[in-house]
Amino acid sequence: MTIKVGVLGAKGRVGSAVVAGVNAADDLELVAEIDAGDSLDTLVENGAQVIVDFTTPNAVMGNLEFCINNGIHAVVGTTGFDEERYQQVRDWCSANDGVGVLIAPNFAISAVLAMAFARQAAPFFDSAEVVEYHHPNKLDAPSGTALKTAQGIAEARREANLGAMPDATEQALDGSRGADVDGVKVHAVRMQGMVAHEDIIFGTTDQTLTIRQDSYGRDSFVPGVLTGVRGVADHPGLTVGLDSYLGL
Amino acid sequence: MTIKVGVLGAKGRVGSAVVAGVNAADDLELVAEIDAGDSLDTLVENGAQVIVDFTTPNAVMGNLEFCINNGIHAVVGTTGFDEERYQQVRDWCSANDGVGVLIAPNFAISAVLAMAFARQAAPFFDSAEVVEYHHPNKLDAPSGTALKTAQGIAEARREANLGAMPDATEQALDGSRGADVDGVKVHAVRMQGMVAHEDIIFGTTDQTLTIRQDSYGRDSFVPGVLTGVRGVADHPGLTVGLDSYLGL
Amino acid sequence: MTIKVGVLGAKGRVGSAVVAGVNAADDLELVAEIDAGDSLDTLVENGAQVIVDFTTPNAVMGNLEFCINNGIHAVVGTTGFDEERYQQVRDWCSANDGVGVLIAPNFAISAVLAMAFARQAAPFFDSAEVVEYHHPNKLDAPSGTALKTAQGIAEARREANLGAMPDATEQALDGSRGADVDGVKVHAVRMQGMVAHEDIIFGTTDQTLTIRQDSYGRDSFVPGVLTGVRGVADHPGLTVGLDSYLGL
Amino acid sequence: MTIKVGVLGAKGRVGSAVVAGVNAADDLELVAEIDAGDSLDTLVENGAQVIVDFTTPNAVMGNLEFCINNGIHAVVGTTGFDEERYQQVRDWCSANDGVGVLIAPNFAISAVLAMAFARQAAPFFDSAEVVEYHHPNKLDAPSGTALKTAQGIAEARREANLGAMPDATEQALDGSRGADVDGVKVHAVRMQGMVAHEDIIFGTTDQTLTIRQDSYGRDSFVPGVLTGVRGVADHPGLTVGLDSYLGL
Repeated sequence: MTIKVGVLGAKGRVGSAVVAGVNAADDLELVAEIDAGDSLDTLVENGAQVIVDFTTPNAVMGNLEFCINNGIHAVVGTTGFDEERYQQVRDWCSANDGVGVLIAPNFAISAVLAMAFARQAAPFFDSAEVVEYHHPNKLDAPSGTALKTAQGIAEARREANLGAMPDATEQALDGSRGADVDGVKVHAVRMQGMVAHEDIIFGTTDQTLTIRQDSYGRDSFVPGVLTGVRGVADHPGLTVGLDSYLGL
Repeated sequence: MTIKVGVLGAKGRVGSAVVAGVNAADDLELVAEIDAGDSLDTLVENGAQVIVDFTTPNAVMGNLEFCINNGIHAVVGTTGFDEERYQQVRDWCSANDGVGVLIAPNFAISAVLAMAFARQAAPFFDSAEVVEYHHPNKLDAPSGTALKTAQGIAEARREANLGAMPDATEQALDGSRGADVDGVKVHAVRMQGMVAHEDIIFGTTDQTLTIRQDSYGRDSFVPGVLTGVRGVADHPGLTVGLDSYLGL
Repeated sequence: MTIKVGVLGAKGRVGSAVVAGVNAADDLELVAEIDAGDSLDTLVENGAQVIVDFTTPNAVMGNLEFCINNGIHAVVGTTGFDEERYQQVRDWCSANDGVGVLIAPNFAISAVLAMAFARQAAPFFDSAEVVEYHHPNKLDAPSGTALKTAQGIAEARREANLGAMPDATEQALDGSRGADVDGVKVHAVRMQGMVAHEDIIFGTTDQTLTIRQDSYGRDSFVPGVLTGVRGVADHPGLTVGLDSYLGL
Repeated sequence: MTIKVGVLGAKGRVGSAVVAGVNAADDLELVAEIDAGDSLDTLVENGAQVIVDFTTPNAVMGNLEFCINNGIHAVVGTTGFDEERYQQVRDWCSANDGVGVLIAPNFAISAVLAMAFARQAAPFFDSAEVVEYHHPNKLDAPSGTALKTAQGIAEARREANLGAMPDATEQALDGSRGADVDGVKVHAVRMQGMVAHEDIIFGTTDQTLTIRQDSYGRDSFVPGVLTGVRGVADHPGLTVGLDSYLGL
């Protein structure tokens, strides 16, 4: 049996990629494409069971209120959520037993898994460093993902009571040893032709473990959204972050 | 407070690497080096709290009986265990409340983590292949680790009801697409200079996740053994495999 | 001083990427976009110094005759050339002193360099293998580039009187050791999300050298075409292949 | 026909690895192992055709004078050479027609090739960065090889009149973008378990080329020394650096 899906923000770049993803999936049926100005009633009329929302911070709360009150599960990639908004969503869910809402800042499955694996591995290695690679038009260095990865590693090391990493460096050119993020070195490469890539490297006696994440294009969020669509009915209430959908 | 450690098989290549590892660790104290012909009583006399056994299938059961009955925990890398032997060890443990025994076929932490991560990631990707790299003196292809990795991926895909991987190949040179292990392609490279390395590659829309494991030398089992030594008192009874010590 | 460039086949996918590349380059000026049905006279009227031809086997010889006879250099990616056509182009060039024509089957600079470096390195290593990675819609395995790379390595090894590579494999799963291309093992991975990638690996005592080529998109030929445009006036007569433009 | 080889400094760590390498090679015959205090006359008595010198700055000039004057070719890895010493060696060679001497600071073939390929590739890419990886006991960062690689790339870019690399970074954590070596960014990773590794990455439209060099152990100089031994008779006079022996 297929799941009936409505897409909100269907004409945006991200929304239209979700539309294409739903259309390409055998187990999903696209029943509504909603964009600014369209009535949400179409969702009910067409029997949508799950909606995907990639709209705007202004529109998303109204969308969620409508859907949750109509018993429609929601998978949300729209930004602008804070604790107050999360609580509001929890309240709506409480009043509508069994409705699930997934709000995630990052639907790129490979990145979410990479960060989770990094936290799991961190306690067992003497050394850990992160090297991220991006196209040269990127404004910030290191990337937000690399920062978050390093912070996760640092936290896992602290919890395991690991001390500082071994590093005998006495003479170093400025910058050669990377940025220090809570004791974890992070290096940022900017390279024409590349998209977005990350090496998370762990080392101990005679061995290393490297978790490498490559993004080759702009649609890397689609599989994560579809994973959300397939699982949201089994996760009633509010879930923040894709992790629990990935068995992490 | 340090943990007092005895090493059995202390003069063997593996055992002597364990001896060096224990000596190098601040939180461990080496209190006995036992080899063939030496009396096990030294362990009790010197107050060993944990022993490490890399001896022989002939010697290991006697060693375990002695240690368990004397309340000494054991970390065992010796081979030759079957279900009958496991049951015997469980029985000895039952009679000695609180004694822990860890028996593991593979103490290379990075390899154990890589296999576990591969199983976790497998359900979320369309494609998965394994490429292993070894020195050219290796007799079998693919390596046992690569085989086991592929089997784990295949099992995780079956449990997630994934179908066959996408592959439009119509014209292929014999062997170019690798060996088929339960539907997972495995490729074996033999390369002068290399030691033992494995790429586990997963792909879905616009992204890949690669788990890379590198062994650079013969002592890659040492950190796993020490992790066992530190944790065995918290794992009473018999544990098979390092996984549960790694939070997997 | 800028070079005035005309593009033939300007409305095709490849041609329009060349148009964009010329427009983005400070030292090149686009003076004509020609497609099927347009008159070649525009090239002369607008003072084109170099043309780029990505048209069809049917159209290209007429285009070249016109351009060479009008003293316009040509950079050609159109397929369908054989020795007879090459000779015809040489004859036209002989009659028009100083005109340069570059015809190349592959303008992806990184791939051309990778193959050349592989040939250079091959005589100095005991082992060499090729692993190529492509999206799963590819029909053939291994890729043409990987085949050509392996053949180049094999030839370089023969010229250096190297024997067979070391390989002690006694027990192998069918296909695990890859396809045998003139004694060089080639492995083909098919992975959702990937584009086109190649590892050329060389190994000898305690060291390896890996030449990795990654294509992330469909415009990887553009820099090579522009390198051809900039250099063609300095290479009078017919040149086949980009190699000599890259100092190889 | 085999080449008769004498090793000077035969009992040192490096010299004894050369001895083992010569013994393992079918086309080379070890005829003399000389160490401090041994007479060089043994070389002549045993018919040495080529000597390998890994001794000391104090010993090497005397060794070379003796060998060259006795018509014995020399492959030298001993350090401490300056222009004055080179000139002295050239003078001795002039007086002994046909005798070849190779003096090289680096015999690791993969590293010498990697640096040469980097120089060749540099003019054709918008971006170039170097990431080196070493064990954490290394005192300096970046490594000497990485520095030299970056300087070679910078020089090749200058000769090709390339400008600065594209880099839109506006906000950067200190050190994240690496050390600036003549405009080429260099990153140094220090990782337990690793030996010595280098990624030289080049990028342009939709593609990258990566030259990766891995050292797994301490004997990576041996193949380069043997390449020198085999080729020195064909390179009369003084040659500095292995490059010309590698067809570079």
